[in-house]
Amino acid sequence: MIKIIDGGVTSAKGFKAAGTYVGIKKKRKDMALVYSTVPSYGAGTFTTNVVKAAPVKWDIELTKNSKNIQAVVLNSGVANACTGSIGDINNEKMAKAVADQLGLKIELVYTASTGVIGKQLPMEIILNGIPTLVSELDSSIESGRLAAEAIMTTDTYSKECAVSFVLDGLEINIGGMAKGSGMIHPDMATMLGVITTDIAISKKLLQEAISENVKHTFNMISVDRDTSTNDSLFILANGLAGNKEITEKNEAYDLFCEALNIVTTNLSKKMAADGEGATKLLEVQVEGTKTKEEAITLSKSIITSNLVKTAIYGSDANWGRILCAMGYAGVDFNPDFVDLYMESQYGYIKLVENGMATDYSEELAEQILSSKEVIAKVNMKSGKETATAWGCDLTYDYIKINADYRS
Amino acid sequence: MIKIIDGGVTSAKGFKAAGTYVGIKKKRKDMALVYSTVPSYGAGTFTTNVVKAAPVKWDIELTKNSKNIQAVVLNSGVANACTGSIGDINNEKMAKAVADQLGLKIELVYTASTGVIGKQLPMEIILNGIPTLVSELDSSIESGRLAAEAIMTTDTYSKECAVSFVLDGLEINIGGMAKGSGMIHPDMATMLGVITTDIAISKKLLQEAISENVKHTFNMISVDRDTSTNDSLFILANGLAGNKEITEKNEAYDLFCEALNIVTTNLSKKMAADGEGATKLLEVQVEGTKTKEEAITLSKSIITSNLVKTAIYGSDANWGRILCAMGYAGVDFNPDFVDLYMESQYGYIKLVENGMATDYSEELAEQILSSKEVIAKVNMKSGKETATAWGCDLTYDYIKINADYRS
Repeated sequence: MIKIIDGGVTSAKGFKAAGTYVGIKKKRKDMALVYSTVPSYGAGTFTTNVVKAAPVKWDIELTKNSKNIQAVVLNSGVANACTGSIGDINNEKMAKAVADQLGLKIELVYTASTGVIGKQLPMEIILNGIPTLVSELDSSIESGRLAAEAIMTTDTYSKECAVSFVLDGLEINIGGMAKGSGMIHPDMATMLGVITTDIAISKKLLQEAISENVKHTFNMISVDRDTSTNDSLFILANGLAGNKEITEKNEAYDLFCEALNIVTTNLSKKMAADGEGATKLLEVQVEGTKTKEEAITLSKSIITSNLVKTAIYGSDANWGRILCAMGYAGVDFNPDFVDLYMESQYGYIKLVENGMATDYSEELAEQILSSKEVIAKVNMKSGKETATAWGCDLTYDYIKINADYRS
Repeated sequence: MIKIIDGGVTSAKGFKAAGTYVGIKKKRKDMALVYSTVPSYGAGTFTTNVVKAAPVKWDIELTKNSKNIQAVVLNSGVANACTGSIGDINNEKMAKAVADQLGLKIELVYTASTGVIGKQLPMEIILNGIPTLVSELDSSIESGRLAAEAIMTTDTYSKECAVSFVLDGLEINIGGMAKGSGMIHPDMATMLGVITTDIAISKKLLQEAISENVKHTFNMISVDRDTSTNDSLFILANGLAGNKEITEKNEAYDLFCEALNIVTTNLSKKMAADGEGATKLLEVQVEGTKTKEEAITLSKSIITSNLVKTAIYGSDANWGRILCAMGYAGVDFNPDFVDLYMESQYGYIKLVENGMATDYSEELAEQILSSKEVIAKVNMKSGKETATAWGCDLTYDYIKINADYRS
């Protein structure tokens, strides 16, 4: 039994967090720290964008070469991307300052930045702020929330989730936080996300679990098809739950993956729903494809289509745009096999059967689409594979936010 | 010397056109016809979307198997896509009615439709309207303009271009019309376009010329990354200029291609500038790549990024978004080599040198970006290949138009 519980990155035993304002942004909190009181294994997945921010390069290196990880320091406001070798030096200074304050070696500290690309980090402000940040570390749920708030940029709310389950009679906890909003089309990872757990698991399996997990969670969401330079998802496992370390893919591993999936799916959906300017969450379920890859490609093509997104905003059952987006996805299929349904709290309707419109009620379709959470189900009737992707509508506010983001 | 002249599809000798209102749309003109008084060769390029409209399937068949083409009938308002076998039958009825009125065999008639997907064509209205349409055929510039107007959907102005040049002492003309606006991300062809010419050229070379041409013109524009189900570009060559038929890739062929390129580039830029809701044309020039394909991929990734498009709308020199869009394009490159410039009627500015911001003036950058035509130049300094792509900004009006297109 996996229970969803209150909390986030501080829910697992031995984890502390802090989120504070140091002065990178004008007003809002802008630095966060997650810390395990004992050495933990770290794993992560990072952006596939060729243009990688300085912290991403640092983290990829640590993930490969550092046996343990004990802290993640994150700032919002400046992305430290396209900043050359100065950016790399600044990133290392930030990690060093945190390591020194915590009495750790520098290679135990992951870093993450998010915000405007091309600006250098304001190092004086950051270095001055780090002692405060470290002094505020606490294991309370409230501290986890402050950290989740401190990594927000244009997010309208903070995103946390935590679960608890029992393994070998021992309580295991997994908690996490994430930020999203714009430039969200994760490819191998999400924007910024930190997951913590007190389970004992080998570093190798921790990495495998998170790498497999993101394929079906963070990599299945999109706000605007723009894969960021800073996408980073971290997971720290400190073993304080006391279970026998998981070192093979047995039942305990499967249970851990299932619980992890609840946390990451929850955070993914929150990110999609809070896409820049979004008023609605769109969930697209594709079933009946020959391969998993086809289902993934088709569902992502639908959630990223501007024309589908604007139709959802307008509660317009313009299903032709959904078929069109499937048609250019790069998957070969027979349009005459396609069935399409829309679903929400207001009902369920079949719009398309065998590639053509059913005699559906436009009024009911509009009512169903007026919900804040809308599901489109596509059945390709050509196989047994399925995939689910999450996106949001495209609205006036997306334009407003992005036509002048920097000012 | 290639001269740009007034006109469009009726500029070449022996071509007539008509554009009229038959009742498919509520008020605006909705049917067009282009006709060569003598048999001409026809060639075309069509959407790569798996979901192909009924007329597209018809035209692909004719392009393969029909020796000559003498007419193109086009309607706007209903796309005749996702309409099953009824759609195919209706399309053939439309072609047959035009063929009968003109005394042609049905396989001499190309068809095209654009508008809402999933609705059947209103056949009674169309069949009633065709005699009027045929009776209005005329070789005047005005008739060409009426045809260009009749294929518009959300376009805010009609798109025509014509050129004239001399070959072997004979005057050769090429003219064309196109419609674009939304669901514009042509892949092998544009939305709807018709080019006519009086040059004598073999059917084989005519097809080769247009297939090569679209790679650098219509396939290099994007409004919203949505490749339509109805993309069709036709070219008819009737030989009335009297030149010796071009049957090999000689100087005459090159001159024809050069003139054709002027017409199609002009129409492509007009389509990009008139993208749904657009206030600005964005031209992206990528140079210094190792391969042509890399330059094409990078330039298209930039013009299709929602974040770049909104920044252009806001006259915000947020160049990080341009580098980011290059980074996820799927091309491997070294970000530290990239230089970026912005240019318009108001000036020229270097924003990025070797992947990092220059000490540029934000005020000048904003002024340059406030123009209705903005050019972004990227130098990759890694090779000699180049490509140019055209797009537009993403604005409130795009949302307005598409949140409720059907009503």
